[in-house]
Parts: sequence; C-alpha cells; structure tokens
Amino acid sequence: MDIKEYIEKIEMPDEKIVEKVQEKQDNLTKPKGSLGRLEELSSLVCSIKRSLSPKIGNKVIFTLAADHGIAEEGVSAYPSEVTKEMVYNFISGGAGINVLARHIGAKVIIVDMGVKGEILSDKVVNKKIDYGTKNFLKGPAMTKEQAIKSIIYGIELVEEEMKNKPIDIVGVGDMGIGNTTPSSAIVSAITHIEVEKVTGRGTGINDEIFKNKIRVIKEGLNLNNPNPEDAIDVLSKVGGFEIGGIAGVILACAKNKIPVVIDGFISGAGALISYKLNPITKNYMIASHQSVEQGHKILLDYIGLKPLLNLNLRLGEGTGSCLGIFLVECAIKILNEMATFEEAGVSKGIK
Amino acid sequence: MDIKEYIEKIEMPDEKIVEKVQEKQDNLTKPKGSLGRLEELSSLVCSIKRSLSPKIGNKVIFTLAADHGIAEEGVSAYPSEVTKEMVYNFISGGAGINVLARHIGAKVIIVDMGVKGEILSDKVVNKKIDYGTKNFLKGPAMTKEQAIKSIIYGIELVEEEMKNKPIDIVGVGDMGIGNTTPSSAIVSAITHIEVEKVTGRGTGINDEIFKNKIRVIKEGLNLNNPNPEDAIDVLSKVGGFEIGGIAGVILACAKNKIPVVIDGFISGAGALISYKLNPITKNYMIASHQSVEQGHKILLDYIGLKPLLNLNLRLGEGTGSCLGIFLVECAIKILNEMATFEEAGVSKGIK
Repeated sequence: MDIKEYIEKIEMPDEKIVEKVQEKQDNLTKPKGSLGRLEELSSLVCSIKRSLSPKIGNKVIFTLAADHGIAEEGVSAYPSEVTKEMVYNFISGGAGINVLARHIGAKVIIVDMGVKGEILSDKVVNKKIDYGTKNFLKGPAMTKEQAIKSIIYGIELVEEEMKNKPIDIVGVGDMGIGNTTPSSAIVSAITHIEVEKVTGRGTGINDEIFKNKIRVIKEGLNLNNPNPEDAIDVLSKVGGFEIGGIAGVILACAKNKIPVVIDGFISGAGALISYKLNPITKNYMIASHQSVEQGHKILLDYIGLKPLLNLNLRLGEGTGSCLGIFLVECAIKILNEMATFEEAGVSKGIK
Repeated sequence: MDIKEYIEKIEMPDEKIVEKVQEKQDNLTKPKGSLGRLEELSSLVCSIKRSLSPKIGNKVIFTLAADHGIAEEGVSAYPSEVTKEMVYNFISGGAGINVLARHIGAKVIIVDMGVKGEILSDKVVNKKIDYGTKNFLKGPAMTKEQAIKSIIYGIELVEEEMKNKPIDIVGVGDMGIGNTTPSSAIVSAITHIEVEKVTGRGTGINDEIFKNKIRVIKEGLNLNNPNPEDAIDVLSKVGGFEIGGIAGVILACAKNKIPVVIDGFISGAGALISYKLNPITKNYMIASHQSVEQGHKILLDYIGLKPLLNLNLRLGEGTGSCLGIFLVECAIKILNEMATFEEAGVSKGIK
C-alpha cells in the first residue's frame, strides 16, 4: 500500500449539508438549539455521511495493544506483563471496555500490534510488528518502516472489517503498559510544549516515578531529535505500535467517511499523528472525553477538538469512546425520530 | 397524607458501605480511581441501595406538565397552548424525551399536574391541581393547600408506580411554558441571589422579553414576599404545580431509597424545594447536566451537587436525566461485570 497516496485521497465532509441539517433540527418540536452539543454532533455526522438521516447501526471499537521498550526505565506503576494479561482479560470479556461496549451494543476488535510475548487466541487480530518497541533512551523506538507499517496495519483493520459489514461509527482505544510516556513525548515533540506540561501520572505513579518519567521523556527527545513536521519521524523515534495503529484507523475512517470517536490521551496521540499526516482527518474525529492526563487538553486544543465529557477518566481501552458513541447515537436518534412542529401540531415560537 | 411525617421518615443512605464499594472497585482490573466520576456514581448508588451489587433494571422518567399564570406577562417565546400540545406530542412518542427514553430503555410517565385545558388520554396520569397557576404579579401563584397538594401528588406518583413494579432509578423532567420564570423566582428567593444572576433566556427569548422577564420576577418577589426558610411558602407564592410535583417525586425517591436523576433548571428548582424540606434528600440526587440557564449552576452549588455533563442543553422534559441514567448504568455495570485482578490473572500495580 502506498500510504501517501491513501492519505491524499481523504476528502472533506460535505459542509454544504450543515445548513439543511440545521433546518431539519429547527423544525423538530424543541426550542431552537436547545439540545446544544447533541445538535453539533448531528451536523457533524450528517456532513461526514452526506445524509440528512444517517443511521448508527454497526458500532465497532478497535482496541489496540502493544508494549513499550521504555517501560524498562520504570515509568509505570505496572509491569509490562500486564499488557498481555489485559489482552487475555479483553478476550474473556472482563475488562472495562468489554462491559461498556456490551452496554452500548458495540463490537470490540482486539488487536495485537506488538505485545511482548505471544497471544494464543483467534479472538485477537494479529497485526504484531514486534515484541514491543525499543527503549527510546537507547535509540529510536522503531524503524521508519515499522512506523509506516503500524499505520498501514491500522488502515487494514478498518478496511478488512468493512468487508464483513459496513461500519457506521468507530471508537478507538489502547492498551499498553508505559504508553502515556511515548504519548507525552509525541505531544511535546509536535506541539513544542515543554515536557512537564504534557506529562501526567498515567495509571497512577508516585512523585519519584513521575520525576523519572519526565527525565526519561526529555532525554529521549534530546537523543532522538524527532522532526516535529514529520509525523512518521516522531512516531518512529518516540512512539508506539498501537499509537501508529490508532492513527491508521483514524485515517481509514476519514478515507471511508466514517465518524471516529477518540478515547483519551493515547488515542489522542494517535489522532495527533493522523492530523499531522492530513489535517482533514480532524473533521472526522469526535473527542469523547477530557482525560485526567494534562497533555490531553493540550493535544485536543492543538487539533481543535472539544471533548464531550469530563468525568476524570483515565482508563483507556476505548472506554471513553463508548460513552461518546452513546451520545452520538442520542443525537442521531433525535434527528431521525423526533416529530416536527407540523407533524405534532405544536405551535412554533415567536422570534 | 401527613407530608411532614412522610418527610421526617427519610433516612440517610448507608455511608458505611462506601469503603467496601471502594475496596471492590479497587480490585477490578483497572488502575485505582481510573473511572473517575463513574466510580463516584457507583459508591453513591450502593450507599442508597445498601448493596454492593445493585441492579438498575426498571428505569422510570416522570415528566410533569403544568401551565403558569405568569405566562400572560409575556415571559416566554412560546404561547401557553404549547404545554398542552407538547403533552400530546409526548403521548404520540415524538418528543425529545420519548426518543432518549426509548434509547436508554426507560419508561416515561407523563403527568398532568395542571395543564390549561383538558388532556383527553389515558396515557397521561391525571394529577391536575388547577388549569395553570395564577399570575404571581397579581397575588400568590397558588394557595398553600395547592402547594402541599402538588408535593403530595408527586409523592403519590412514585408510590403508585412502585405498586406496579419496584423502581430501580428515577429521572425527573418538566414541561410548562413560562416555567423558567417561577424557577428563577424560587432560586432567587431561597438562595438570596439577585434575580439578574439567576435568570436566563429559557426557550430562547430576545433582549426585550428578557428584560421584561427580570422585571416580572422582581415585582413578583416584592409583591408576594415569600419566606426563604419556608419552601412551601416559596412554592405557593411564586412556584408551579410541576415544580412542586418534582419536589414530591424526589422526596418519595429519598424515602424509598431510589436514586433520582435531576434534569435541568426547572427540575433543579424542584430539587431545591425538596432540599429545603429535608436536606437529606440531597444524598439521593444525581445532577445529570449543567443547563445553559445561568441560575442552574447557582442552585446546584447551593444544594452541593456537581453535574455530570455540560452539553449546553436547555430542553427539559427529562432529556438530561436520560443521559445521566445511562452514565449510572455504565457505573453499575462496571461494578457488577468487570473481572477482578485475581479472576483475570492480571498483576497488580506497585504503590
């Protein structure tokens, strides 16, 4: 696959439809604009799907897992083994993402993008690039070829799933012990904002580990010196396989005119990569929530996304995406199912 | 019914259970506290239901409708007839509340608390007190007896519905052209905050109508001089039948240990009345969202509630309550369905 060619094929959503959507919304039996951000969501989804009555039937969450060489520097509260253990937890349906995806009626596709060790299950899509990235304190996290491959694998996930059944909406999520560290590094590299301001406590680390984490990110950026204008260079120097994969999923959604709901900080780092590769992708993204991770707000502001929820979440896996998808469904059902003033025989208001 | 006796029977939720809930949550396969406000919701519901694995099965939205004499002063963008017309829209399932309640699988109980004109349908619970309140620029909105009756009717709604089937969670909502005006009056009277700061544009009024609305509320408060420490006096002087009814629903939920999700500004005014009647009711309330109406934040702060969502909603009917109930279900499903570290064979983190 020629990734450059693929990315260039992404088209803008149909912005001309927005006025017609607003007209439709204003005829529904409610004061104009009274459903606030739900009305914004309707407009966005209509412009993406080029329809005044889009359907949200098939909902798919892609949860991408990978390990990180940088974890050996002691940047997380959990050992690397937990990535693999959690993948098995996803398989057996006991994780947060399983519970919330069941609740909203979404399918979860679990992907091994580069977990340390073997995952022995046909319930996991195998897109393994390597057994975790390299420690970016000792050189780049991955080769340029691997970075491109991770994005292509992400694209393939969507393209292959679409062959089974058309997808109406996608949610992205991540699993990877240590992955707030590459995410902070990516955000700092691309936005030029200092490491301290884009680094948080991930799964919940103490002061000492937090200090070390900041040092590690700074040294990693100094050593590898990624080119902020070259997203693939940033991804290869200090990124992660699941982050590249998430960027690929988003690119494929934009290419195929599917709205894509972004989870928290790590998914946001993937979104930032796809945004740098083609800023049009922004118009296909829905930011589900504002994570506790302080770098998240910075990257959302950089892309120009306003999160729907602020519930102090920091779990990842795509859990926030589930909540976001629910709100999108609310918006679309309102648009499709509410009666108009005329249908209901309700008097319109004065101006 | 002796309302005073009923209110005094309300007990505190079981706060001792909170520690055990936290222990249970901390054993689930996620970093401690990583589900943020969803974990708070779990604790709250467990303490209300005195159970470590509560169920949210039967969800009931009470949407209370009534008219307001004050509407004749031109405080709304819509004519009073719209209240009745919207009740018929609720009956035929075409309103926002119908769409969102269907989406979350909740039953909607439509109640005529005092609509102008007759509602000819057995799909509406008849708790009509009068054909709208009186214009509070010409005297009290209702008699003291009517105010008490509206609260008792609200209590009866819950008690009667419970005879059909136990209720696991309640949402409240309102419909009543002109009802942000009594709501602002109630909030100003009880919180002692000036009318300008607790008054908004309701369904979307222009500057001229807005100025008039503030004048009307000020004059109404001056004329009727409600006693801020006597919630029933405030309700009777400047309130509304649906607002009293909502207060009654909340009291009954607290009495019967049912979590009650509050919608926006008008439901909030009802919540404020129930809070003044017995502050323990606060512990049974969940504030679904922060309304666009500026007085809403003031009343939530006064009660001590933090809204879950901020989506610029201002529709009412219980639409925000539906979104809140969805989040409560997420929280409870997480608590009940997620695997523990032990069950899933996942390593625990270091401190």
